[in-house]
Amino acid sequence: MVLSERSLKLGDNPIRKLVPLSLRAEADGVEVLKLNIGQPDIITPRPALDVLQNYKPDILKYGRAKGKETLRSTIASHYNSHVTYDISSDEVFVTTGASEAILLTFFSALDHGDEVIIPQPCYANYIGYAKMAGLHIKALDCDIEDGFVLPFIQDFEECISQKTKAILLCNPNNPTGQYYAKDDLEALAKLVKKHNLVLIVDEVYRPFVYDDTFHSALSLSEILESVIVIDSISKTFSACGARIGCIVSRNKAFLNAVQGYAQLRLCPPDIAQEIAIACYQSYSSYFPKVKEEYRKRRNTAYQRLSKIEGFKTYKPNAAFYNIIELPVASADHFCEWLLRDFRLNNQTLMLAPANGFYLDRKRGKKQVRLAFVLNCDKLNQAFDVLEAALETYEELKV
Amino acid sequence: MVLSERSLKLGDNPIRKLVPLSLRAEADGVEVLKLNIGQPDIITPRPALDVLQNYKPDILKYGRAKGKETLRSTIASHYNSHVTYDISSDEVFVTTGASEAILLTFFSALDHGDEVIIPQPCYANYIGYAKMAGLHIKALDCDIEDGFVLPFIQDFEECISQKTKAILLCNPNNPTGQYYAKDDLEALAKLVKKHNLVLIVDEVYRPFVYDDTFHSALSLSEILESVIVIDSISKTFSACGARIGCIVSRNKAFLNAVQGYAQLRLCPPDIAQEIAIACYQSYSSYFPKVKEEYRKRRNTAYQRLSKIEGFKTYKPNAAFYNIIELPVASADHFCEWLLRDFRLNNQTLMLAPANGFYLDRKRGKKQVRLAFVLNCDKLNQAFDVLEAALETYEELKV
Repeated sequence: MVLSERSLKLGDNPIRKLVPLSLRAEADGVEVLKLNIGQPDIITPRPALDVLQNYKPDILKYGRAKGKETLRSTIASHYNSHVTYDISSDEVFVTTGASEAILLTFFSALDHGDEVIIPQPCYANYIGYAKMAGLHIKALDCDIEDGFVLPFIQDFEECISQKTKAILLCNPNNPTGQYYAKDDLEALAKLVKKHNLVLIVDEVYRPFVYDDTFHSALSLSEILESVIVIDSISKTFSACGARIGCIVSRNKAFLNAVQGYAQLRLCPPDIAQEIAIACYQSYSSYFPKVKEEYRKRRNTAYQRLSKIEGFKTYKPNAAFYNIIELPVASADHFCEWLLRDFRLNNQTLMLAPANGFYLDRKRGKKQVRLAFVLNCDKLNQAFDVLEAALETYEELKV
Repeated sequence: MVLSERSLKLGDNPIRKLVPLSLRAEADGVEVLKLNIGQPDIITPRPALDVLQNYKPDILKYGRAKGKETLRSTIASHYNSHVTYDISSDEVFVTTGASEAILLTFFSALDHGDEVIIPQPCYANYIGYAKMAGLHIKALDCDIEDGFVLPFIQDFEECISQKTKAILLCNPNNPTGQYYAKDDLEALAKLVKKHNLVLIVDEVYRPFVYDDTFHSALSLSEILESVIVIDSISKTFSACGARIGCIVSRNKAFLNAVQGYAQLRLCPPDIAQEIAIACYQSYSSYFPKVKEEYRKRRNTAYQRLSKIEGFKTYKPNAAFYNIIELPVASADHFCEWLLRDFRLNNQTLMLAPANGFYLDRKRGKKQVRLAFVLNCDKLNQAFDVLEAALETYEELKV
């Protein structure tokens, strides 16, 4: 048998089975409005791709495991120019996407059998990487009724056992589109300090906060050395295909462990690091417009959703996601049905069933995640489809 | 503690502590002849970098987890054009370097606690990745006295326990520079079949065979579905910084498991895949000259080494490595001393202590690995330094 038992326990990706249905609809000439994945439709900064014109090394060599000094100092400057965290380039470790940052962090900070507390719904790949690293996830339920606010600190504390080593947050959150504010983080910091835990915060959506000022975990002065921040250029700069992320930490021993694991994969991709430098350099001319566009989409979506009956939802304040709870028994079935059977003006809709964002998949079975990766016109069309589809689906049930 | 216990058991990299010594020598104006790492000095195919001039997507998007269809079919064609293995593009899974291919293979094919037989000395990162995946390595000793030939099949068979699931080879071998020929592979195939094992063969040096015809594990018709081949563009095309490799397998269930783990990291870097396509397309105009250059270096090295007394070595028949056993108590110490204290015509030499290539580091303590990554003139200078250094070192001992 050329197959591990653990691979069978990894869990399938609920979106994956929708792909053939979407391809079939497209082959039939139907326009599939895709709100299912966090692939931005916004154009990557022009200067970031222009660097390729001047990239002419004789040899595509291995680089350093922790990334190019030029990129690490660019990232450090970027962090320090917006809020003064006083991060040095040595505290930035470049990774092959935020995904690799999660993997390296899990192995470097945590041991087989350790427990990590994660509010759910959560980014699905945390669950897969936790399995790879042999970690147990203690999922703390957040509730759509109150807009998925962070659970009470008492709830976190009740979860803590001898084996609990870390709390992992995505802030701003994918899949909820909600930002956990300063007070939440400071309360968590006290808990982390009291129980000698590690606070891992995935901040890949850090600049996408619409109704508040972003407060990074790097500002938690009480627990400076217990914080690990994960970041990426993918969402901020619409550069998912580059595969550049980073780990930011003030803990030298931890970064040294990261170096040990990272050396196994030698180095992050070279050219992509040059692209990343140009991305960060174009931030102030590029990102404000991007953020306004996403804010508009968030507003459009909320306006439409609040007019459709039978939904449970909330107004997300960050990132570009929104979970909605549908008046259906199975969101999985509804998503399949949309692609297979429902058309409005020759359009249909692809959504992400939210059960993959829960450790206990039953909890999310009526929910779907929307990603605002279409412009407002297309978003409106998507909601037209959704509204009509729900009516038809309701009728079919009867 | 923001640090896992497992990270402390990962083992340090013996080359790493030499880096500051090398940097200091260079700061002093000394030329450090570096034979320590497998970073080719040969120029990357021009057309591979020229693709960047025409690479102008609007958005750097996520790609497919298994890589671009254009790249997968290019790789399949490349394989089939040299020997007809009848590989289809669906049997090629693109990875972020061969490193990631090893990681994905270990998790997809093997379980925590499984045993893997690996002839040693071996590529050091197998050891690190095996630790990550919770595998036990059974190291089978190869001996410099007979040029590190493959151990007898009986020796492999004696190693096999209930928990043994796989045999892992690097062929042609890094760090020995030796190629295991057709007969060896066919004997192993019988054993693999008899004990229902998996044969994982890292073939990243596949075209670098100087005195024989390369025989891929993909040709082992008795065990077609039990073979996993790992490959990369890094060495063949001097494109280490691109980070593109692949897994080739005819086992659909295994590839499906790879897909599960690979989805966690979303996709391989996008631009690097375009570079890889151009690399493969330039193979026949590019690689023959490269191979001749490495052959010349191998010959030069052997000519020089066979004239120096007190060495144990052999004539490597593949790749671009050579292990030599020095007449010293500690190769580690000798390598440090070279960089710190020894100069000839303002040059010194950086070598890789070979103990990192052994599970039991004591076995390699007198050995170093040379990588033929300097041209013949520089190689000759390197051997001048080595010869003089050994004399001086010997005198100092007395």
